[in-house]
Amino acid sequence: MRWHAPQQASGFSLCSSNSRNMTTKQDLEAIENQISAIQVSSHGETVNPVLAHGGFKIVEKGRNWGWLLSGFISLNILLLGIAIVCGSVFNKIQISSSHLLIFLILIVILTTVWMVYYKIHTSRVFNAVLYKDSHAGPVWLRGGLILFGVCSVLMDIFKIIYYVGRIHCESPVKIAFPVVQALFVIVQTYVLWVHAKDCVQIQQIITRCGLMLTLSTNLVVWMMAVTEESLHQTVAPVDPLYNSSSNGGHKSNVESQGRAGDSECKCIHDMCDVFEKAYFYLYPFNIEYSLFASAMAYVMWKNVDRQMDEHHSHNLRFSLWDVLIGPVAGLIILVAGLATFVMYEVDVAKEEPKKKEEALIMHYIMNIVAILLMSIATLIGCIIFRMDKRDQVSGKSPTRSLDVGLLVGSSLGQFLICYFTIAAVLASGVQGRINGLDLTNSILTVIQLCLQNAFLIKGLHREPFKETETATVYANVMAERERDPERRSSSIVPAHTLPIPLMLLQGRLSWKRRILKEICAFLLFCNVILWIIPAFGARPQFDNTVGSDIYEFQTWAAVVNIGMPFGIFYRMHSVASLFEVCLTS
Amino acid sequence: MRWHAPQQASGFSLCSSNSRNMTTKQDLEAIENQISAIQVSSHGETVNPVLAHGGFKIVEKGRNWGWLLSGFISLNILLLGIAIVCGSVFNKIQISSSHLLIFLILIVILTTVWMVYYKIHTSRVFNAVLYKDSHAGPVWLRGGLILFGVCSVLMDIFKIIYYVGRIHCESPVKIAFPVVQALFVIVQTYVLWVHAKDCVQIQQIITRCGLMLTLSTNLVVWMMAVTEESLHQTVAPVDPLYNSSSNGGHKSNVESQGRAGDSECKCIHDMCDVFEKAYFYLYPFNIEYSLFASAMAYVMWKNVDRQMDEHHSHNLRFSLWDVLIGPVAGLIILVAGLATFVMYEVDVAKEEPKKKEEALIMHYIMNIVAILLMSIATLIGCIIFRMDKRDQVSGKSPTRSLDVGLLVGSSLGQFLICYFTIAAVLASGVQGRINGLDLTNSILTVIQLCLQNAFLIKGLHREPFKETETATVYANVMAERERDPERRSSSIVPAHTLPIPLMLLQGRLSWKRRILKEICAFLLFCNVILWIIPAFGARPQFDNTVGSDIYEFQTWAAVVNIGMPFGIFYRMHSVASLFEVCLTS
Repeated sequence: MRWHAPQQASGFSLCSSNSRNMTTKQDLEAIENQISAIQVSSHGETVNPVLAHGGFKIVEKGRNWGWLLSGFISLNILLLGIAIVCGSVFNKIQISSSHLLIFLILIVILTTVWMVYYKIHTSRVFNAVLYKDSHAGPVWLRGGLILFGVCSVLMDIFKIIYYVGRIHCESPVKIAFPVVQALFVIVQTYVLWVHAKDCVQIQQIITRCGLMLTLSTNLVVWMMAVTEESLHQTVAPVDPLYNSSSNGGHKSNVESQGRAGDSECKCIHDMCDVFEKAYFYLYPFNIEYSLFASAMAYVMWKNVDRQMDEHHSHNLRFSLWDVLIGPVAGLIILVAGLATFVMYEVDVAKEEPKKKEEALIMHYIMNIVAILLMSIATLIGCIIFRMDKRDQVSGKSPTRSLDVGLLVGSSLGQFLICYFTIAAVLASGVQGRINGLDLTNSILTVIQLCLQNAFLIKGLHREPFKETETATVYANVMAERERDPERRSSSIVPAHTLPIPLMLLQGRLSWKRRILKEICAFLLFCNVILWIIPAFGARPQFDNTVGSDIYEFQTWAAVVNIGMPFGIFYRMHSVASLFEVCLTS
Repeated sequence: MRWHAPQQASGFSLCSSNSRNMTTKQDLEAIENQISAIQVSSHGETVNPVLAHGGFKIVEKGRNWGWLLSGFISLNILLLGIAIVCGSVFNKIQISSSHLLIFLILIVILTTVWMVYYKIHTSRVFNAVLYKDSHAGPVWLRGGLILFGVCSVLMDIFKIIYYVGRIHCESPVKIAFPVVQALFVIVQTYVLWVHAKDCVQIQQIITRCGLMLTLSTNLVVWMMAVTEESLHQTVAPVDPLYNSSSNGGHKSNVESQGRAGDSECKCIHDMCDVFEKAYFYLYPFNIEYSLFASAMAYVMWKNVDRQMDEHHSHNLRFSLWDVLIGPVAGLIILVAGLATFVMYEVDVAKEEPKKKEEALIMHYIMNIVAILLMSIATLIGCIIFRMDKRDQVSGKSPTRSLDVGLLVGSSLGQFLICYFTIAAVLASGVQGRINGLDLTNSILTVIQLCLQNAFLIKGLHREPFKETETATVYANVMAERERDPERRSSSIVPAHTLPIPLMLLQGRLSWKRRILKEICAFLLFCNVILWIIPAFGARPQFDNTVGSDIYEFQTWAAVVNIGMPFGIFYRMHSVASLFEVCLTS
């Protein structure tokens, strides 16, 4: 008994419609992707053809109160944190920083305890983690976590030494917090390093809540660090009592002004000044650490109860010899950037206005050249993506859309700084070379960010070239599942039967792929240097006084201190994404 | 030639597994929903069995650069707006409010021009809008838009009269802006009223960009209004020059202090004071209007290129006689709330500390009683939802998840105010009856908000009872599409063949449905009164000085002025959602 005839006919009608329309192959792939998204495999359960379906998972998800509960926990901790941080900034007496520190100690200890429990519990229970998300916790994120984690622990040690020297006039909570925080950072770094890819299947409600607790703890720590850093950069605390005496003097040296309020308290050892300088130098790393940990906790939270399709394990090969011009040009920019960065730091440290001005001009010119070249390269890349409509995948992968969300979200920080700069320079009337360069730099950066975001979003939503060329296209759920050649009765259309001259396509695309790879490599190196310059301490936003002249210094410090860590995160994330786009194109 | 045998067999095996597992019916429904989500109908195109698939739409979407472009436009306008607003607050000289107004006039005119173009173009082109989203632009949103729009136009007229009286000492831009804004509000209200449900199919890139322009214009107007309102409530501008003289005097009457900085300028007619008071009284309505318009523009943007499945047109009947206790109890709360609100307003206006204290105590007690009852009712509702695991739909409907997003997002405003109050009262040591009541009220409100959000999220993600009982369950893409009885060859399982005793289920659920309806009706009335009290001017946050004592007045005013309009929006949105949950349960 043969049943194939009618479906075969429909298969043929499909083929004939394909020859008319070149985009149909793409459509078929999209359908295949959608179908494979439905067909999430269900290991370890009684195999019921319906239960094995993706629908079951969605119902499970919708039913999950843990999702709601963890969301509310996070919301409440975060908002309470915001209120206490605001209170401690605007009211030094009734809500002191000790209150904030006590709150922080509580949530930090709670989070640490949960993480230890999680570690023990998942290692004891056999089927706690059945799946790993290969996209989660990429190496740059985990590497960054380790690096910034080490710096955070160092910062805590310096803080402890500093406050031990002032134990007779400071609250003991100020020593307790860095101790607890150091422990927290060590435990968290270990747990996130080991478990970043977990898709937890047991105790989902507790795990979701714990991860949200981790996320909110890190964000509250981040808020506190940003606030302290901003207050440290302004002359005195924002307490209204200090207002009349300290207003106006905020434009001079930023580094030496943090200790205005506590001059009566003498340190019992000689090293207080050194350690204070050292721990404030390490603050940005702690800020960055909190952002990294938050991002990883969020990805883990998203992955709770997720069942992975192993569909996306490509064996991508990276050969340096595929590309030449891009990496070479990128390396030139990188070396030039490093050279100007060193010269900039040296010149700015000299405290001479003339030298500082020269350093700023050099810095801006270097940046403008780099960003202009990057914009042009990215624009070409976008045009190539626009021309090449072939291999687009649907945007349904949660890790993928999370990735894109983090990318666009973190770019907001640099957007914010750029727009504040643009408004400030325009308001000041664009006087002098420095301001002109600053304006050009900011406008170009905005354009470059838009282009790079578009390029990366488009690039990340593409299937790798190789797979597309050999894949077999299915258009039927049943057929894919049952796999029985006798019953493969409906419109399965192997790619090689499609009347598209694939070889021709491949040949024509080859130069596009080459250019895309060159562009990615170039952008990668450029993003590395744009990451290094702010990450290792260059702050032209403060060295150029236009921002702090137009806005109050405190507002400007807040904008820069919130925006900059996101900007650094963005550049690192971009490097990783560009590497991926480079591999898949 | 009959082919049915093997598939029928699999259908039977399904049924036998069902008798073992009661949740399977639910799974089938979820699968049906997922399948119907894939099977988006594609009217008006050449019918190709593969192209007619949902996959095509997703590919189209992914390919759409308009989405990216409009996002970047919105991002850039918003961030520039933030920078200019911040500049105009912190620097009155180089970035004056005139600069801000010129920026606003530009984007408002641009948006108005686009809306006129949109109106003309869509009415001329035949197939511009093929589909309407029945969930978008519900009547409460459009009604609110009209109401607040009328108030905004009134505000603009008062503003024009006020500034005409001061034309000799104010910039003419200050008259130009309200004129342009009034025009903008009229055009926008008309366009949104008529087109809120549109799913635009032509000129998608331009439409997306235009809608994002509308969204960002409204948000920038919103930011400006919030800032002006906050500055008005504080004594003097934030300019550091004013700081030393005006600090400390911010706790007395809020209404009469707005004109501290401009006392040198005399009005040429007698009515300036009256009109100034009037237009500042109308500011909150304008703030609310901008939020409403933003929400509607965002929904329209989401709906560009969407092709609706007409699947969700239930004929739901609402009978008042189904429920009794809920509405009666709700009405009692509503009337009591109205009475205390009127007494509160009268007492507070008297300016006697004794009377004010009594008014606050009464207000808090009223609020605590209402919110406590609401929390209990919502908790019961949540427990019923938890017990009743039957009819859950997958959360894939974009309008549905947008609705939930707006709900949770707008609740953040009230969360923020509550947490700031809690921190302030705790920091002040909870002295006196008023502070104790304020603390209780805030904590209960936080709990109530969490519960109500959970209740509404769960409630909105449910299929209506009626449909579930009569629906036929399909589990195959092909079968549903082809509809040919001869070829309905795979595992189609009509619901009435499932061995679940449906009648029994129906009987058992009846009391649950009754209770759910009662709870919804009760919560609905309570939310109405919680909406009325702040919407018509009660501001216990300012009458009780604990917030402004702990934080600086300006911070507190900013928190309340940002949080309160979102809170009002949240209560209105809740009323509409509760009505929907009431109908479907």
